[in-house]
Amino acid sequence: MDYKPLSGREFPRFSAIKTFFRLPYVEVDADYQIGICGIPFDGGVSYRPGARFGPSQVREVSSLGRVYHWSRALSFVEKLKVADIGDCPVVPIDLQKTYERIQKFYGQIISQDKKIIAIGGDHSITLPILREIKKKYKKAIRLVHFDAHLDTYPAAWDCEYHHGSFLRHAIEEGLVDAPRSLHIGIRGPLAGETDLDVIKKYKMNILTIDDLRAGTLKDFCGHLPDFNNDPTYISFDVDALDPAYAPGTGTPVVGGMTTYEAQQILRALKIKNLVGADIVELSPPFDHSEITALAALDTLFEIICIFAQAK
Amino acid sequence: MDYKPLSGREFPRFSAIKTFFRLPYVEVDADYQIGICGIPFDGGVSYRPGARFGPSQVREVSSLGRVYHWSRALSFVEKLKVADIGDCPVVPIDLQKTYERIQKFYGQIISQDKKIIAIGGDHSITLPILREIKKKYKKAIRLVHFDAHLDTYPAAWDCEYHHGSFLRHAIEEGLVDAPRSLHIGIRGPLAGETDLDVIKKYKMNILTIDDLRAGTLKDFCGHLPDFNNDPTYISFDVDALDPAYAPGTGTPVVGGMTTYEAQQILRALKIKNLVGADIVELSPPFDHSEITALAALDTLFEIICIFAQAK
Amino acid sequence: MDYKPLSGREFPRFSAIKTFFRLPYVEVDADYQIGICGIPFDGGVSYRPGARFGPSQVREVSSLGRVYHWSRALSFVEKLKVADIGDCPVVPIDLQKTYERIQKFYGQIISQDKKIIAIGGDHSITLPILREIKKKYKKAIRLVHFDAHLDTYPAAWDCEYHHGSFLRHAIEEGLVDAPRSLHIGIRGPLAGETDLDVIKKYKMNILTIDDLRAGTLKDFCGHLPDFNNDPTYISFDVDALDPAYAPGTGTPVVGGMTTYEAQQILRALKIKNLVGADIVELSPPFDHSEITALAALDTLFEIICIFAQAK
Amino acid sequence: MDYKPLSGREFPRFSAIKTFFRLPYVEVDADYQIGICGIPFDGGVSYRPGARFGPSQVREVSSLGRVYHWSRALSFVEKLKVADIGDCPVVPIDLQKTYERIQKFYGQIISQDKKIIAIGGDHSITLPILREIKKKYKKAIRLVHFDAHLDTYPAAWDCEYHHGSFLRHAIEEGLVDAPRSLHIGIRGPLAGETDLDVIKKYKMNILTIDDLRAGTLKDFCGHLPDFNNDPTYISFDVDALDPAYAPGTGTPVVGGMTTYEAQQILRALKIKNLVGADIVELSPPFDHSEITALAALDTLFEIICIFAQAK
Amino acid sequence: MDYKPLSGREFPRFSAIKTFFRLPYVEVDADYQIGICGIPFDGGVSYRPGARFGPSQVREVSSLGRVYHWSRALSFVEKLKVADIGDCPVVPIDLQKTYERIQKFYGQIISQDKKIIAIGGDHSITLPILREIKKKYKKAIRLVHFDAHLDTYPAAWDCEYHHGSFLRHAIEEGLVDAPRSLHIGIRGPLAGETDLDVIKKYKMNILTIDDLRAGTLKDFCGHLPDFNNDPTYISFDVDALDPAYAPGTGTPVVGGMTTYEAQQILRALKIKNLVGADIVELSPPFDHSEITALAALDTLFEIICIFAQAK
Amino acid sequence: MDYKPLSGREFPRFSAIKTFFRLPYVEVDADYQIGICGIPFDGGVSYRPGARFGPSQVREVSSLGRVYHWSRALSFVEKLKVADIGDCPVVPIDLQKTYERIQKFYGQIISQDKKIIAIGGDHSITLPILREIKKKYKKAIRLVHFDAHLDTYPAAWDCEYHHGSFLRHAIEEGLVDAPRSLHIGIRGPLAGETDLDVIKKYKMNILTIDDLRAGTLKDFCGHLPDFNNDPTYISFDVDALDPAYAPGTGTPVVGGMTTYEAQQILRALKIKNLVGADIVELSPPFDHSEITALAALDTLFEIICIFAQAK
Repeated sequence: MDYKPLSGREFPRFSAIKTFFRLPYVEVDADYQIGICGIPFDGGVSYRPGARFGPSQVREVSSLGRVYHWSRALSFVEKLKVADIGDCPVVPIDLQKTYERIQKFYGQIISQDKKIIAIGGDHSITLPILREIKKKYKKAIRLVHFDAHLDTYPAAWDCEYHHGSFLRHAIEEGLVDAPRSLHIGIRGPLAGETDLDVIKKYKMNILTIDDLRAGTLKDFCGHLPDFNNDPTYISFDVDALDPAYAPGTGTPVVGGMTTYEAQQILRALKIKNLVGADIVELSPPFDHSEITALAALDTLFEIICIFAQAK
Repeated sequence: MDYKPLSGREFPRFSAIKTFFRLPYVEVDADYQIGICGIPFDGGVSYRPGARFGPSQVREVSSLGRVYHWSRALSFVEKLKVADIGDCPVVPIDLQKTYERIQKFYGQIISQDKKIIAIGGDHSITLPILREIKKKYKKAIRLVHFDAHLDTYPAAWDCEYHHGSFLRHAIEEGLVDAPRSLHIGIRGPLAGETDLDVIKKYKMNILTIDDLRAGTLKDFCGHLPDFNNDPTYISFDVDALDPAYAPGTGTPVVGGMTTYEAQQILRALKIKNLVGADIVELSPPFDHSEITALAALDTLFEIICIFAQAK
Repeated sequence: MDYKPLSGREFPRFSAIKTFFRLPYVEVDADYQIGICGIPFDGGVSYRPGARFGPSQVREVSSLGRVYHWSRALSFVEKLKVADIGDCPVVPIDLQKTYERIQKFYGQIISQDKKIIAIGGDHSITLPILREIKKKYKKAIRLVHFDAHLDTYPAAWDCEYHHGSFLRHAIEEGLVDAPRSLHIGIRGPLAGETDLDVIKKYKMNILTIDDLRAGTLKDFCGHLPDFNNDPTYISFDVDALDPAYAPGTGTPVVGGMTTYEAQQILRALKIKNLVGADIVELSPPFDHSEITALAALDTLFEIICIFAQAK
Repeated sequence: MDYKPLSGREFPRFSAIKTFFRLPYVEVDADYQIGICGIPFDGGVSYRPGARFGPSQVREVSSLGRVYHWSRALSFVEKLKVADIGDCPVVPIDLQKTYERIQKFYGQIISQDKKIIAIGGDHSITLPILREIKKKYKKAIRLVHFDAHLDTYPAAWDCEYHHGSFLRHAIEEGLVDAPRSLHIGIRGPLAGETDLDVIKKYKMNILTIDDLRAGTLKDFCGHLPDFNNDPTYISFDVDALDPAYAPGTGTPVVGGMTTYEAQQILRALKIKNLVGADIVELSPPFDHSEITALAALDTLFEIICIFAQAK
Repeated sequence: MDYKPLSGREFPRFSAIKTFFRLPYVEVDADYQIGICGIPFDGGVSYRPGARFGPSQVREVSSLGRVYHWSRALSFVEKLKVADIGDCPVVPIDLQKTYERIQKFYGQIISQDKKIIAIGGDHSITLPILREIKKKYKKAIRLVHFDAHLDTYPAAWDCEYHHGSFLRHAIEEGLVDAPRSLHIGIRGPLAGETDLDVIKKYKMNILTIDDLRAGTLKDFCGHLPDFNNDPTYISFDVDALDPAYAPGTGTPVVGGMTTYEAQQILRALKIKNLVGADIVELSPPFDHSEITALAALDTLFEIICIFAQAK
Repeated sequence: MDYKPLSGREFPRFSAIKTFFRLPYVEVDADYQIGICGIPFDGGVSYRPGARFGPSQVREVSSLGRVYHWSRALSFVEKLKVADIGDCPVVPIDLQKTYERIQKFYGQIISQDKKIIAIGGDHSITLPILREIKKKYKKAIRLVHFDAHLDTYPAAWDCEYHHGSFLRHAIEEGLVDAPRSLHIGIRGPLAGETDLDVIKKYKMNILTIDDLRAGTLKDFCGHLPDFNNDPTYISFDVDALDPAYAPGTGTPVVGGMTTYEAQQILRALKIKNLVGADIVELSPPFDHSEITALAALDTLFEIICIFAQAK
């Protein structure tokens, strides 16, 4: 199997079956190293739904994907076997059943010494993923979490599990090493002051948009911690980006990051042992001209290159 | 309390707090006769979500509502006290909890000798409503069901309850008098021939779009059965309409009804004892220029006038 | 001056300065016979504005205009000199000042034995036009009025003149011969029964959508009155069309005409002395893919051909 | 290979890699009988481009496809092996090179006793297809052509071959049996009377929208000719449909067919030897809420069922 | 009366009657301290209309409002009684009548020792507001004016009062203390050099986008003047923001502010005696995915917090 | 001939025939100095088409154009005679024929000592322009090229000439002085490392987005080279801008320039002998609320002012 994307100079970019990055679509037990899968579940959202169409839309704009990273001077296809492994089974109207299916699907694959980049779907999909990651790595991982929201919020409508509480559960279940993780792009407003208690309680390392903009972007990037060989996971909620850059999302918050800032931070991260990643909360019905999908695709590219660079 | 809408000649139609038909927004125990409530739940859908924004959108376009029905020569405000009673509580990510809340909310109100027109939400909301209707009227009601789909489909993804199975459950639970009910606008394609077995099994009276178009509209209307004083419920899924008339819905099917046909049929229905009604599957994120919302609003108007005429 | 449109086979349809029907843009005192002018005023609307962009949008889609009418077997450019004469001056925020400017502009041109097709703008622009028509023809003209609304409504917000009252004023000012005029496509709902009093009072000839659909379209067309040589004016409000066909309008009403019905009626009209016409209430911000603009353009084509046929 | 679509009751309709009708995506030399291929070329259009995205969009909405045809009482998967065979190679900026590639691709497949339904792309793609059909069947085929336009127009901008001249070339090259073919939905306006000369010259059988609406739809369908065992090809330009039903196309013409009319005509066609078909001129950038794509998908379904019925 | 918003954790954010910030909707003479009212008038605009839908749209997106301000560490509901007081009466087609109604409505309320945040509508609504402010405070107030335009332009189409001249009139009527006011975000191009004469004439303090970007944002914020206890009014025209952040406005100008810059400036303003505020020129028909409405909502939040902080 | 735009204070901005900047539309041999022409050709694009509608859309938004440049303190109409000279003939489906027509049209005009600003159209139109520029100036000109892409890419689908290869051909044909030209806004990803070989080979001066953001914008602008009296050409591809600012383009790349950055760079350019310019790749079908068109219009304004300043 040749893990190369279709060439846009042979097959025009608007043609052909759509796969992530125009890469081969393979069975889950093929010999790829990094599998990109969709997890089209938006049954955990509190406001605008639509993230169930996220994987399909990222595949659609993948037509514009290219494999060579100029700043890193690497072509990921020369370092890694990356493939589209299709979509994880989900139950659109039942969160718990979906969690079971995600865990089963995810666990089976990573048990084979493969890694997965998941394309959501809403942020509730990250919790079952982290559960499987924990099973494999036997320890709480370090998380790099891009988001406008803390996602440590309490139960809502008597439901413990929703897209705004995944992180609280992940910390409470011991899946995430809270003090050694990062949360980037966080900003307000909040429902109340108590929403912040969790930060102290779990010694969370929050980098708000004000922290990011306090000095130059270069300085900010230069002071990010080193993740060394620690198992690290990246969870990128597209609402970390400003609505001007990412209108197609469920709970947009103004005053956010630019895509350029996101790129620079992703390039600055020193992660040698990336164990998985996800890109979530892309809601195509609220996007226009696919700009949010393109931002998600670009984030996917940066994350693949973090894997490739670590090779 | 004066159950009159705001006048567009005094308060411009784009101004003021938005309520259904610009009617007063009242507490659920006020002295209205017909309460219009929103049930903003779309956790039962199989394809496009967004019907959770249905009630809000119908309130928005209610600006264009008017109370005098030319063909019927009646002004509903002179016959009935109609009010906006707000939204029923729902749990966006849990169908069973939502069913409980709908039943509690709905049951309490209809126990007071009031009637409700529910604005959905997806079609899964009709089942808990019918359960409460059954409790009150102690018998299976006759249903007039506008839809592209039979909604008698089997479980999906191991889930019995979803927006495509509400009717099967309603029949099986004895809530609906199947042979004496009507299903209008039904059309294909289907997953398989077995999808039709239920029709014979329950002696359902299906009026497909071909039946509707077999002769003149007048003839079709003239041959509709008389519902007399039997307790009758109307459930109007906006996908009964063609996507040209109602693009803003979750599972559109081409080759459907025009809004004119829907109006004529609603006007032709001989129902003396309408016990409730709903309008479902309006998904505003997929609408444009509010045309589907306007079709839903017009259906709401026709239904209010059926209540008014029966006075 | 050669009153021919640019050929789409020489100059691609998307190219060139946009004029009505790709016809020459000429000074108002040039030697054309039929002048098409824009009247981009929407200061009389009660709900959605935007009709100020109507003329510009009709010019844009004029790229798709063609001059040969198949059913009539005539090419209007062989019969008539038709031109784009630009836009009438308007005062966007003052209805009375706009009325003065419309009357001055319109009166000057028709005094030269020319005729005008006006592209609105909202329906309030028809009143000052009819005033000038009356001045010239010295009698109340016969009106063929396509609309969802009667436009005989009372003052609103203490304002006598607005887009919903133009016709009442036109009748009361003696500009229109009410009993010998036609109103096609009218439909409800209405604010109240008294909205209908004006029909009896002025002996208006209302052809509702139900009248139109009572039998076959052919029959309906066959029974339209003959306008002979009486001075006749056509006012076409695009909301006569159903919102599925004309979403881009200010106060859409469901259950309306199809564009095919409008075409057939326009072709069936027996008018030998058409003294002017307008197409109003196209609101491009609420249109999509220009379908309403295309319907307006087609109506413009049919009206030009009524002029041409009468030659 | 099991030529069955993914079940929506197992894999939610918004999930999985998108193929036509959720059918398997197979190599061109697999053992299917009917291959559905995309031909994403819009380099022949005169106005709005975008049809290059047609195949991708039809695959996207194929999520809503179902295989059982109620009126015909057949499930096509039980009769035929149908598959998505990917996209034909095209050269987006060169019509002649694209023609060569279409002919090579198409010719190779049909030489294997397989048949193809092509999803365009603009209407210029039909000419190279018909050339290959002619090669195989050794005679001019009978064409059933749905369109608003005759597509027999002259050269434009000194170019003989474009989307509006494919039919003239097909007739002149002897690919189509003009007098025994049908053209349905044709309507004006036209550039000039000479545009009609070709009809007499080639004895073309034109069924305009007026012919279609002259009596009842049933009568119209009942009088369609019988194609018996003659090799017959269906070319469906979505602009045969009215812009209300199909806004997403390049050169829309108001006053067109409804999707219901299209369905009924497709069902009434007596074709025993369908040798191929195409669906063209779907331009997704001008669609909204995918209604045009859904109409194209439904047409694809009807055409597959014509193949299946003939089995 | 409990001036608390509906909780999103109890009532999902997409549900319930829409009010500003989900706060109670109260009568104008209730005991609130800060009343948020809509002034849905766009009869003063020179280009794109639609701001009449501004209040309704801000209420719609208020679903996403939250009350705790992280940087200020305050929850405004603990400091102030804030309420939605509905919409001010307007006459959509008459600016002068609207001015009278605004002045009457506004004057009555502020005479009761309450303050108002007005949601426009176009910028012409600010003039009658400032007239009432002047009546109450008996002196020219200091204005903090966010805008792309100076709004000191001359009469247009013989009309003195329009959305581009409100500030000139406010200065000339002695309502605004020109030399001690601020205008932030101003940028070109202009109709001519004379448009700038007014700056010198009235000693206006203009902070163009170039002034804002000359150094760091922190420096810019640090050098803003102190408004102390002087009566100060904030008028925020959303076109101060760049069209990327605020496409939904009537006369967009590229090269504008980001929402982050607006937030930082609003937070840096030292205003102890804020006497009123408005947010204007939000035109929902030109917005997409509600991003401009969300920016307006966020500005509303910042302004409420300025009131709260001063408590 | 008075080369002044229509005044927005006399003729509302939404009214009148649309020309570039509301300037007079004149014959190509009139006595203007700077002619603005459309070149509506998008037959060279590799992904999203639609740039054929670019000239029409820039004319539409020209309604918001104004002539006085605040920073430069000049009104271009006082320095230069600028006019709309209509659209260059193109052949939408044939690149080579279009090249011939562009060269003929362009060459004739610039032989008259006039200069042209071309509004595309896709980037493939720049090559024939540069050929004519070379003919006139007899030397390779210096290019200031704003773009996300290098446009030095190899042949695609066996076609040498397309929108991504114009620059390579321009260099290889000796039209552009590569080492003394500038390319601003360039960013990745790329198809492969070899895409960069051309930079060294031709000693190109690439200023990536990272170069632009390395320090302050002021510094970046201050270090741009001086073009003195060398013949210099500006080619502005709107995809140099970030998709948030310019969604309406064919091949968007995230992480791009803001419109403010583009303005500042255009103002900082020291060009005394600007011989021509173009603005390309505006694709209106993918724009929203005209924000990309407004960015293109603003760029046009800046470029006109470079001409004016040099006077």
